[in-house]
Amino acid sequence: MNEVPNWLDAVRWNADGLVPAIAQDAATQRVLTLAWMNREALERTAATGEVHYWSRSRGKLWRKGESSGHVQRVREIRLDCDDDAILVLVEQVGGIACHTGRERCFYKRLDDGAWREVEPVRKDPETIYGKS
Amino acid sequence: MNEVPNWLDAVRWNADGLVPAIAQDAATQRVLTLAWMNREALERTAATGEVHYWSRSRGKLWRKGESSGHVQRVREIRLDCDDDAILVLVEQVGGIACHTGRERCFYKRLDDGAWREVEPVRKDPETIYGKS
Repeated sequence: MNEVPNWLDAVRWNADGLVPAIAQDAATQRVLTLAWMNREALERTAATGEVHYWSRSRGKLWRKGESSGHVQRVREIRLDCDDDAILVLVEQVGGIACHTGRERCFYKRLDDGAWREVEPVRKDPETIYGKS
Repeated sequence: MNEVPNWLDAVRWNADGLVPAIAQDAATQRVLTLAWMNREALERTAATGEVHYWSRSRGKLWRKGESSGHVQRVREIRLDCDDDAILVLVEQVGGIACHTGRERCFYKRLDDGAWREVEPVRKDPETIYGKS
């Protein structure tokens, strides 16, 4: 029997076993988030059709939306030229990707030498996650 | 005199003094590249209106397009919610962001358990960079 090369082996994981993964909204084309995947997160993303990341702050596998319901459904997974960055085109359930209740994490824009918050909160995080 | 807070201090640089930076084409909305910036690269990107990165392989500041002419002109610079990722909306001069001569670096798509190259080479890299 021939060995089937594993597509996960093509990825150049960093010293921590991670690669940066960009999520882009397939409908609006907006870049939603940059997070990190380890091998298991990428494998489960492909296998389940729902985006999984590795949470560096919590040190655990994280199915995006597991608390909030704001799941990212996979439309397409891409790898870059030097095999060390992932791009996932997603359907963003609920239209909210950011834990602040905004559509996306990139809501601060550089204007005249200062970062300005230029996108509205769509839903109060306390409503999304419950009071802490 | 009051001290003016420096917008560069708001960025959470990693242990190597870097943050990942995504370049997105402002016209087509396609995600072109993921590269890395240090403080100087980000400062120069804002100051000059042309995207600069830190080349990890060459260990030097790198004005995108300095060899190829495929400069990225800055339209907008954004920072994410936890201050450790940058998104730059760019005008991609020449319509080629990737050193392989393709429009963008994310040209490999996962199809049935294998990475397939799904975007054409627009210009032979030897024509772009000269024979090596």
